Amino acid sequence: MHNNIITISREFGSGGRELGKRLAEALGYAYYDRELLTMLAKETDLNEDYLEQTLEESGLSSLYPITIGQSFSVLPDYFANHSTDLLRKQTTLILSLAAKSNCVIVGRNADIILADQEPLRLFVHADMDERIARCRRRETGEVLSDKEYEKKIRQIDKNRSKTHAILGDYPWGDRRGYELCVNTTTITIKDLIPALSAYAEKWFAIKQEH
Amino acid sequence: MHNNIITISREFGSGGRELGKRLAEALGYAYYDRELLTMLAKETDLNEDYLEQTLEESGLSSLYPITIGQSFSVLPDYFANHSTDLLRKQTTLILSLAAKSNCVIVGRNADIILADQEPLRLFVHADMDERIARCRRRETGEVLSDKEYEKKIRQIDKNRSKTHAILGDYPWGDRRGYELCVNTTTITIKDLIPALSAYAEKWFAIKQEH
Repeated sequence: MHNNIITISREFGSGGRELGKRLAEALGYAYYDRELLTMLAKETDLNEDYLEQTLEESGLSSLYPITIGQSFSVLPDYFANHSTDLLRKQTTLILSLAAKSNCVIVGRNADIILADQEPLRLFVHADMDERIARCRRRETGEVLSDKEYEKKIRQIDKNRSKTHAILGDYPWGDRRGYELCVNTTTITIKDLIPALSAYAEKWFAIKQEH
Repeated sequence: MHNNIITISREFGSGGRELGKRLAEALGYAYYDRELLTMLAKETDLNEDYLEQTLEESGLSSLYPITIGQSFSVLPDYFANHSTDLLRKQTTLILSLAAKSNCVIVGRNADIILADQEPLRLFVHADMDERIARCRRRETGEVLSDKEYEKKIRQIDKNRSKTHAILGDYPWGDRRGYELCVNTTTITIKDLIPALSAYAEKWFAIKQEH
């Protein structure tokens, strides 16, 4: 019997991270997002920001081998690089956390890494206008125009979709790769939580029955 | 205050109709699908099958004017045809049913027609293999090969998307046009109902609060 795992993939600015955090609170599940980087930083003695950049933003991440856990001895040199090593460490960490307790994991392709654990895979999205407005609300210094926000949002989403494309059966954000695609355009994240946590509870109850 | 309206758009073979029926039962809502045709047949003295074909499968439906309720006097002749008249009658019927009680409406672009009532818009989908398997399970005589099923499924979906493209802001099946996209690939429709009805109840409870 697997633990109850919820993975959250999200468009930048859609509120997916807040949704994950609140959902974990409502369900009493562990929550992992930035926490994963903190753990990895401890393990590797590397800086969190460096890790984040290497793991998420680097184009190298697209070289991440699909054959997780297999021997890499016969693979070409570029698989053996630092970035790949970090990704493998992150994968191991995600697998061990999922084995430990019920949890919500945001990002990091956990939907694919944990496929065998049959997670409830959510994709969180919103219309561009709403995403720009959300970015603006959490502004902390840097003030951008709508155009600049849109460009930034599209760039981050593009990076997210790149790694996913290599690992997954379906493109990032393609509804076929998720149990639920959740639209946050017309409702606050807080207001969504009662509905989503009720959904998750019933979903896992049924799954445990079988 | 609006009634609680759930609209269901669905890929052919994804189980959307069964989902709608069971969801309406679980919530105690009225359910409209084929029932709409029966009512329309009574009103127009036309045959249900004829109505179905004219309203759903005819290419003419793509001429459906976006300006529902406006005067058509200045519109070109082809808008004034029989098919458009029937679509207007169907629209009026859908609006009046939605005003009457909480309900689940399957298909018929109700998601767009009822936009002002802020329905909970679901899009139900599944992987092609599962959709073919579902079609096969409900076979009633005609036996098709997988290839033939796939062709039929894609054709029906194409027809559905055509009308929608004219009426809606987003393409048919585009996640941005729905509150939830629900994947029925790895779970039975029956097993989905407790989760979905719990979601709907919480969703409408929050919406009523505001």
